[in-house]
Amino acid sequence: MNHLVAPSILSADFARLAEEVHDVLEGGADWIHVDVMDGVFVPNITMGPIVVEALRRKFDCYLDVHLMIERPERHIDAFAAAGASSISVHQEATPHIHRALQQIRSHGISAGLALNPGTGLDCVAPLAEELDLLLLMTVNPGFGGQPFLTATLPKIAQARELLDRLGKKHVPIEVDGGISPDTIRQAAAAGATVFVAGSAIFAKPNRKEAIMSLRSVE
Amino acid sequence: MNHLVAPSILSADFARLAEEVHDVLEGGADWIHVDVMDGVFVPNITMGPIVVEALRRKFDCYLDVHLMIERPERHIDAFAAAGASSISVHQEATPHIHRALQQIRSHGISAGLALNPGTGLDCVAPLAEELDLLLLMTVNPGFGGQPFLTATLPKIAQARELLDRLGKKHVPIEVDGGISPDTIRQAAAAGATVFVAGSAIFAKPNRKEAIMSLRSVE
Repeated sequence: MNHLVAPSILSADFARLAEEVHDVLEGGADWIHVDVMDGVFVPNITMGPIVVEALRRKFDCYLDVHLMIERPERHIDAFAAAGASSISVHQEATPHIHRALQQIRSHGISAGLALNPGTGLDCVAPLAEELDLLLLMTVNPGFGGQPFLTATLPKIAQARELLDRLGKKHVPIEVDGGISPDTIRQAAAAGATVFVAGSAIFAKPNRKEAIMSLRSVE
Repeated sequence: MNHLVAPSILSADFARLAEEVHDVLEGGADWIHVDVMDGVFVPNITMGPIVVEALRRKFDCYLDVHLMIERPERHIDAFAAAGASSISVHQEATPHIHRALQQIRSHGISAGLALNPGTGLDCVAPLAEELDLLLLMTVNPGFGGQPFLTATLPKIAQARELLDRLGKKHVPIEVDGGISPDTIRQAAAAGATVFVAGSAIFAKPNRKEAIMSLRSVE
């Protein structure tokens, strides 16, 4: 199986971001996950395009930008210009999610649909043609270090089945929140293939080992 | 005169924040200015408490946090806990500016009132008892590198006069936006004593020289 590990810099040392990102890339990270929060859609404020831009200047890696912000369409162009490789937007954050996904793709980058734990899969079929990635939150977004919500496991399995049925076998399911060597096994068994991990990687002194232990999923 | 220079990390290299901050502190910076934007009150998203926390872990310096965010009272506690030395909030961002200033002081730190270029000084007198700092924007907030609005100069002078008349001679006026060796002279002559500077410092290879040239105001 082709699993991807995406360390979230939300758990990195923000005073030494370049070193932190270099460290996890050396350790085998596939994507760098950038958690953007506006303090309105979610209760925390984190980082904006300046961070994406600063990383893009130094790294050629895949920058997976997750917008946890109200009306993301107002900011998609800025994040694309800053150098995002993919941008995921929340269905709950805008009445114009279809247009937002098209707007992301218009920049030639991948469009992700993000769903909170309490959001059903109803919206997936109408958006399937615009989707490059489905991001299922496995915690309620806002802060790092929260425990994995096991109640999201059936949704992951249903989402995989639904995407396959819609002819979207190539659209990966990314899970975000509470990912550890224990929970990653369950999420992978349910059909997820991209794993965001924050503290499970950055809180460990040896990031290569931490990434390897996440990869060693059966 | 006791002028303070406050480099704004909005113009720093975000991948190497610790080095950048160390560099300007060595160069004589008095305060480190942290521009927080939520993409709602202003059109840009920048940084949140994680940045303040990361800097506080490494530096003992004065962290001057400027909240350009909607309803700042929702986030004051998080920034205070992260280690802010002062927090400035915009009159335009909340109907409860008096309470917001009290909330900042309840953490034992300095409370600043920030006013956009288009906002008059009417609100200053009713808030004078809660004020440790008056921050007058000399550009419209949102992005670094904008030119100084000279139309704000009479407002700086009127604000100084007003604060003095209210018995608040000790409350400094901070100016933010378009500050350079040229414009700092005008702002200082009008009565400002704290000067936020972004690109005028971080865009220069020698930050010590840049800070000294800002200080050499007559």
